[in-house]
Amino acid sequence: MFRTIEWLDESNQVRLVDQTKLPLKVEHVVTDSHKRIAKSIKIMEIRGAPAIGAAAGMGMALAAIESNARTKDEIISYLEKAADTLNTRPTAYNLTWATRRMLNKARSLAGTAEDIIQQLIEEAKEIAEEDVRMCRQMGEHALSLIKPGYTIQTICNAGSLATVHLGTVGGVVRVAHEEYSDIKVYAVETRPRMQGAMLTVFEFMEDDIDVTLITDGMIGTVFRQGRVDCCVVGADRILRTGHVINKIGTYTMAITAKYHNIPFYTVAPWSTIDMETNPEDVIIEERNEDEIRIINDEYVTVPTAKVYNPAFDMTPPDLVEAIITDKGVVKAPTEEKMRKLYEA
Amino acid sequence: MFRTIEWLDESNQVRLVDQTKLPLKVEHVVTDSHKRIAKSIKIMEIRGAPAIGAAAGMGMALAAIESNARTKDEIISYLEKAADTLNTRPTAYNLTWATRRMLNKARSLAGTAEDIIQQLIEEAKEIAEEDVRMCRQMGEHALSLIKPGYTIQTICNAGSLATVHLGTVGGVVRVAHEEYSDIKVYAVETRPRMQGAMLTVFEFMEDDIDVTLITDGMIGTVFRQGRVDCCVVGADRILRTGHVINKIGTYTMAITAKYHNIPFYTVAPWSTIDMETNPEDVIIEERNEDEIRIINDEYVTVPTAKVYNPAFDMTPPDLVEAIITDKGVVKAPTEEKMRKLYEA
Repeated sequence: MFRTIEWLDESNQVRLVDQTKLPLKVEHVVTDSHKRIAKSIKIMEIRGAPAIGAAAGMGMALAAIESNARTKDEIISYLEKAADTLNTRPTAYNLTWATRRMLNKARSLAGTAEDIIQQLIEEAKEIAEEDVRMCRQMGEHALSLIKPGYTIQTICNAGSLATVHLGTVGGVVRVAHEEYSDIKVYAVETRPRMQGAMLTVFEFMEDDIDVTLITDGMIGTVFRQGRVDCCVVGADRILRTGHVINKIGTYTMAITAKYHNIPFYTVAPWSTIDMETNPEDVIIEERNEDEIRIINDEYVTVPTAKVYNPAFDMTPPDLVEAIITDKGVVKAPTEEKMRKLYEA
Repeated sequence: MFRTIEWLDESNQVRLVDQTKLPLKVEHVVTDSHKRIAKSIKIMEIRGAPAIGAAAGMGMALAAIESNARTKDEIISYLEKAADTLNTRPTAYNLTWATRRMLNKARSLAGTAEDIIQQLIEEAKEIAEEDVRMCRQMGEHALSLIKPGYTIQTICNAGSLATVHLGTVGGVVRVAHEEYSDIKVYAVETRPRMQGAMLTVFEFMEDDIDVTLITDGMIGTVFRQGRVDCCVVGADRILRTGHVINKIGTYTMAITAKYHNIPFYTVAPWSTIDMETNPEDVIIEERNEDEIRIINDEYVTVPTAKVYNPAFDMTPPDLVEAIITDKGVVKAPTEEKMRKLYEA
């Protein structure tokens, strides 16, 4: 699998795969403009929190080059404007985190403008590398749970395409597949936005990993038939109580897995852990009703049909066999165990 | 809600709604030709076992008129050929059942050709009326389970459009809605063929019944949020053991309902009960992979993606709170209770 985003050393450009064209076409955006990166983030050519963070970091490095600055102050002044331009998605935490990290780095540096710019490029590349290392760590921690010959069921896309490389669930699958070559995947298509069908199937096929696509309603049947050994899903947020907030359909999958005694795991970087919020205070985003009413530009129901479209759901800890993070694995998660790992 | 199919007395024609055009257009086929009816069955302008049975009966009545016969023998000879023409879907039990019933009726009649033809028209109308009465009976039996203000969740289409009028699940909802006007419905879109989105939403909106569309993966969330009071689903087959074979997604829904202590009911005419087959001998049809890969003529995944596409699933009796039939309700179904009702 190619990298979702990377820095091209020869040309000091950024190359990212245009995810709006997948899975039918693999097209890349190659640019030396931070404004083009901002556009890619905005129109979701690049998506997924870690990938967006890397894009923002590299966008800041491009801006530093673009600045043609002769002093540190000129660089910082240009970067402050670039950070505003790059912050196109207000709720994307990694976006502000990465632009702030790049700005702080610039402020901490000394030397010629040229030296500073070169070190900012290295910092942007380091943000991307940290993500790749973190995904590999999660995959390695998960080896204690995944056995040879396992078939892993997942939902949505928490794969390489949501990160710089490997992915969270993708990291678990890929590291296990490196270790035991017979790992298989069942991907749930994940209505309404079909990230399972469009992205997860694509990227495992790219890596010659045996992947089978099913619809969301088929999970009970594939569990009953013994086709799946465990579920591994990503997480948009994990509470200190062990509650997992993830793509709609995850909670139904966790219930159905429990009924069949199939272990259900979630995997996410430690930065996904929210030690503050209580489960009852989590607000689930409701998205546009036409996401359900329209597929490929045509209505699949009455155009005025009433629709309920929650984007995420919350799975309680009693359905979660283990939480896999880059810091380690928490089995049968409780607030006490989460706090212990947090403080470790 | 209009009737799916009806006999027009003034013109001795059959009128049926073209279900391939729903939900965006309501167009009818009006014909005096049994061959046109055969085509409607074949290309699924009409679908659903009871509706197909009624169509076949009316097709036979049209054939009797078309025969221009002067004797009973001439009528029967023409009807035998018409029955072959109408039997376009080999596994549709109601199709052969209805053509055979019409032939047997013709053989039992005496009188002029004109008298016989008139009585065959009455017989075809009676097949349709029996279906309407049966749906109403199921709805009335279900009143012991449905309380005022209930929100009923269903899957696929077991509504009016699968029958002549009212429907099986549709009958339960409509009779309850007549009784208590505040009955609401949640319809699951039912991937891959989207009968929930396309047909169920359409027909309840036609009747001004409050219906909300969700995707198959949202069931856990709507149950958790207390939006649903019970599930009522149709059945393609019910075994004497109480196992329910129905559209893919039903089994996952039943598990998820049980987890939330939400009663799960199935409703079907007694003719759906299979007293012979053992659960382990049920073969689940696998359908074309492109049903999952393609929506509205466009790929939603890699065109060569591996797909598993079972059309139905089987729900064990411990997940089924009650089976509602025209003969009565079987609560907590067991083979003994099923046999008792069978012999009643």
